[in-house]
Amino acid sequence: MVHTGACVASLLGQGGSKRYGITWRWLRFFKNDRDRRDLIVCGSAAGIAAAFRAPVGGVLFALEEMASWWRTSLLWRAFFTTATVAIFLRAMIDVCLSGKCGLFGKGGLIMFDAYSASISYHLADVPLVFILAIIGGLLGSLFNFMTNKVLRMYNVINEKGIICKLLLACLISIFTSCILFGLPLFASCRPCPPDAVEPCPTIGRSGIYKKFQCPPHYYNGLASLIFNTNDDAIKNLFSMNTDNEFEFSSMLIFFIICLSLSILSCGIVAPVGMFVPIIVTGASYGRMVGILVGKRSNLCHGLYAVLGAASLLGGSMRTTVSLCVIMLELTNNLLLLPLIMMVLLVSKSVANVFNANIYDLIMKAKGLPYLETHAEPYMRQLTVGDVVTGPLQVFNGIERVRNIMFILRTTTHNGFPVIDEPPGLEAPVLFGIILRDHLITLLKKKTFLPTPAANNYDVLRQFSSDDFAKKGSTERLKIEDIHLTEEEMGMYIDLHPFTNASPYTVVETMSLAKALILFREVGLRHLLVIPKIPGISPVVGILTRHDFMPEHILGMHPFLVRSRWKRLRFWQTFLEKILSGL
Amino acid sequence: MVHTGACVASLLGQGGSKRYGITWRWLRFFKNDRDRRDLIVCGSAAGIAAAFRAPVGGVLFALEEMASWWRTSLLWRAFFTTATVAIFLRAMIDVCLSGKCGLFGKGGLIMFDAYSASISYHLADVPLVFILAIIGGLLGSLFNFMTNKVLRMYNVINEKGIICKLLLACLISIFTSCILFGLPLFASCRPCPPDAVEPCPTIGRSGIYKKFQCPPHYYNGLASLIFNTNDDAIKNLFSMNTDNEFEFSSMLIFFIICLSLSILSCGIVAPVGMFVPIIVTGASYGRMVGILVGKRSNLCHGLYAVLGAASLLGGSMRTTVSLCVIMLELTNNLLLLPLIMMVLLVSKSVANVFNANIYDLIMKAKGLPYLETHAEPYMRQLTVGDVVTGPLQVFNGIERVRNIMFILRTTTHNGFPVIDEPPGLEAPVLFGIILRDHLITLLKKKTFLPTPAANNYDVLRQFSSDDFAKKGSTERLKIEDIHLTEEEMGMYIDLHPFTNASPYTVVETMSLAKALILFREVGLRHLLVIPKIPGISPVVGILTRHDFMPEHILGMHPFLVRSRWKRLRFWQTFLEKILSGL
Repeated sequence: MVHTGACVASLLGQGGSKRYGITWRWLRFFKNDRDRRDLIVCGSAAGIAAAFRAPVGGVLFALEEMASWWRTSLLWRAFFTTATVAIFLRAMIDVCLSGKCGLFGKGGLIMFDAYSASISYHLADVPLVFILAIIGGLLGSLFNFMTNKVLRMYNVINEKGIICKLLLACLISIFTSCILFGLPLFASCRPCPPDAVEPCPTIGRSGIYKKFQCPPHYYNGLASLIFNTNDDAIKNLFSMNTDNEFEFSSMLIFFIICLSLSILSCGIVAPVGMFVPIIVTGASYGRMVGILVGKRSNLCHGLYAVLGAASLLGGSMRTTVSLCVIMLELTNNLLLLPLIMMVLLVSKSVANVFNANIYDLIMKAKGLPYLETHAEPYMRQLTVGDVVTGPLQVFNGIERVRNIMFILRTTTHNGFPVIDEPPGLEAPVLFGIILRDHLITLLKKKTFLPTPAANNYDVLRQFSSDDFAKKGSTERLKIEDIHLTEEEMGMYIDLHPFTNASPYTVVETMSLAKALILFREVGLRHLLVIPKIPGISPVVGILTRHDFMPEHILGMHPFLVRSRWKRLRFWQTFLEKILSGL
Repeated sequence: MVHTGACVASLLGQGGSKRYGITWRWLRFFKNDRDRRDLIVCGSAAGIAAAFRAPVGGVLFALEEMASWWRTSLLWRAFFTTATVAIFLRAMIDVCLSGKCGLFGKGGLIMFDAYSASISYHLADVPLVFILAIIGGLLGSLFNFMTNKVLRMYNVINEKGIICKLLLACLISIFTSCILFGLPLFASCRPCPPDAVEPCPTIGRSGIYKKFQCPPHYYNGLASLIFNTNDDAIKNLFSMNTDNEFEFSSMLIFFIICLSLSILSCGIVAPVGMFVPIIVTGASYGRMVGILVGKRSNLCHGLYAVLGAASLLGGSMRTTVSLCVIMLELTNNLLLLPLIMMVLLVSKSVANVFNANIYDLIMKAKGLPYLETHAEPYMRQLTVGDVVTGPLQVFNGIERVRNIMFILRTTTHNGFPVIDEPPGLEAPVLFGIILRDHLITLLKKKTFLPTPAANNYDVLRQFSSDDFAKKGSTERLKIEDIHLTEEEMGMYIDLHPFTNASPYTVVETMSLAKALILFREVGLRHLLVIPKIPGISPVVGILTRHDFMPEHILGMHPFLVRSRWKRLRFWQTFLEKILSGL
């Protein structure tokens, strides 16, 4: 659902799809980088709001995990989106109360509303929950580690072609089916509880007591877990007063199945979720702890399942506030909040020692150029001049068409500095930066000048803002599509009216870490580097996202060692500092 | 509580108070601008978490309203703080269950838990709630408008001295007392309901039926509202199945009293809250609507009170997600979420047309130099060079002590560019920026050089990081405290080791709006302006927060007109665009 929401938003951001004839004219106002990015954030927030019926959690998740560039207005937009989702959802539930919509109207606004009764817990239970959270954090980081490894293995297979991709997906699903149908055969049958509210055993419909291969009036605990939808399984695991329903062995098997299958199924071509499998796994882990602890604790096993799910989520996703709110909106129990907060704190801290959060790992494994928020320690030792690479292509304010065509064909850069040579000055002066897309638009319009004389800004009347709008992925023009006559190649273009005349600049001696902060916080695509001492050229180079990537920097400076354990070392130095200070 | 939390955090950020002997050595790690700012955000989050028992709402409120510079790590720190508060609070409630702590243990984690029963609402109720939200938004902006006016009036009085301040506070409190005791005399007495759960009337203790001046078995509705604590009043207003308890006239009087008293009491020297009075006012407004609507709606009056409180909060504070979560945590009803989200959306949008949120208005009325997030439209027409003011004071890399003393004494600037004149170049080169505090530290240490020769960085060994730590407000050194002999005045200081060698810079032709984005997003104090064409001086000026303030810019460029109705105009153009596009 999150993915779907983001996809719909991306489509809207491209102004609909021309190929399928769904396009609106007013959507063209969103045709720029910033609005498209914001739309995708809002779309994913709407996806979470709809999938988990957690509107506030959706906003927070989108902000904490999705948005790389946060603004107050984005918060307001995401809130607007999810509020609309929530109101519409509530209205549909209202309309569907009569039962005309199949299963849709049944859920209500709270998905796992297992705790309407007030529950109590005391100080004595805290140490146990603490241990549960530590182990949950370890499991979460183990999950991240394994997922990362499996994903990198799949990447190798997936690169071999569409056949291999499909084959992999089929293999995984056959393997999954075999395991799911095979394993319950080894679980023992248990007698139905005499005071069961639901029919026991149930055959041919959903319910919490599955008969599977057992004699009448007996049920198979493992099958009851496996042959339910994930949602029902979570509801069962979270429910109260079911302490004797599941036995330890079947819970252990279920936990191992869930953990390994979620790891295996992530990264195949079929769309598989990440959130719900982790909740199921975590809930079974929590139940296991509950069964192990037994009578030594006052907490019921369902509560342990909730906390186990929270600890595994915290250990693998590492978000805090949004997970807290999502758990709150899923289970509708405000009184649990202090415990859930504690579990999330502990499991996130424990897991942070070992690796990054699952989304960062997936992005890295997929090779997406995602820029991290924090500057690595070695970046403080480097200056911007150390990482900028050449050769640099610059344009003059009034440039020959032939040069533009040549440079656009021979390079893949997306931004080019424009320089001016004012009369009476020795050295040229930086005027601004022009984008590749805009240059191509200019070449396509063919508003060329016969002589290198500056025309005035009247030329802008020939263009509408639509011409420079961000194109959708299918309709983007390439330089190869533009064909000019030899006469046109000899003419000139005045680039001044189309150049961004106030680009962000840094001096070449600027610390790389500080330049990264500027790049990230302001949300730039290109950063011009200017020389410290005025020289022949007014610009040293252009920094793009690629230049800030650790792979690129470490490639240029092989003597730098990337700190693998920097998070651990941070805590170590922090503790040492505090201890020495006391 | 929010204020208290922020104050404690600020004290911690200054390393405790030396004057009162409460200081820890390890607190010195927080002695810098950034950590102090973060600490204050966390402190106010903790304050909200403790005051409203809303830990998640506290985090969100701090981020949405307090933090001008948001980072993921700040979210994590604020979450850590409020989680600790929540866990500690829950543990104390646990300890206090036996009743040893007076009233403390009674509240539970949810303050206004009036809706444990499930409530239902339908599509037909939505239009009414919509109207309620619109009027709530109007009232909220009216509240902001009046508060702003009253605050500016009080500022004039408060400036006249401490006596006037105290007198004002006394006057307001006497006036408040007179109104509160006088008005219930005019309200009519109502007979006690026969099926009342609580004793009616109650005399001499807290309860919802106050006798005041009524005969036995009668109660005074207005007195019942007024002579309770705010918390109890909110609980009464929010409670269900009390539709006949209050009559319209007493509710109207109560609403007017609350509104005017909250406006009047804000800004006097006594610490008065803002949040709870608005909730009370909003709740009474909601009840009023509920009574007016009467039987035409299925919603009970308590529900209207909740929505009314939400609408007034949304209309005056203009936060969205955090208010939503705080309302959720206060009332513990997840099912209300879609309605509350809708009310907040509508009331915020309506109120935004008229004025800014209450905190911005208060900050402006108090004259605090707060920089707005958004660039004003006219800033796009200006360049950085248009607003930068001189004369500029610069230091050489190796500077005579006499010059430093002179410049520090005659100016109030906090940052000075440091320039170098390398041999063989015509023009000097910008080296970096040095802070006033650091210069004063250098002068105090008296590590002077007899000749203008560059010493190496060994001089840094004479300083520890403590010397350059941000000082507390009482222990800050002033230039007047430094006394040097005539011989020392003739010596030199090498400023290079103490200069920030990679300051952020902008070219003088940079658009002012873009420079403001850089300034805000990166969280700067000083921004160096460099010339476009290299000239005599490598630096044109320094931009500080003051230079971005609209008052300053409009003072320099009186032909610019500030758009009062820009928010309204934005929506107007937006609608026009969409309509023309369809």
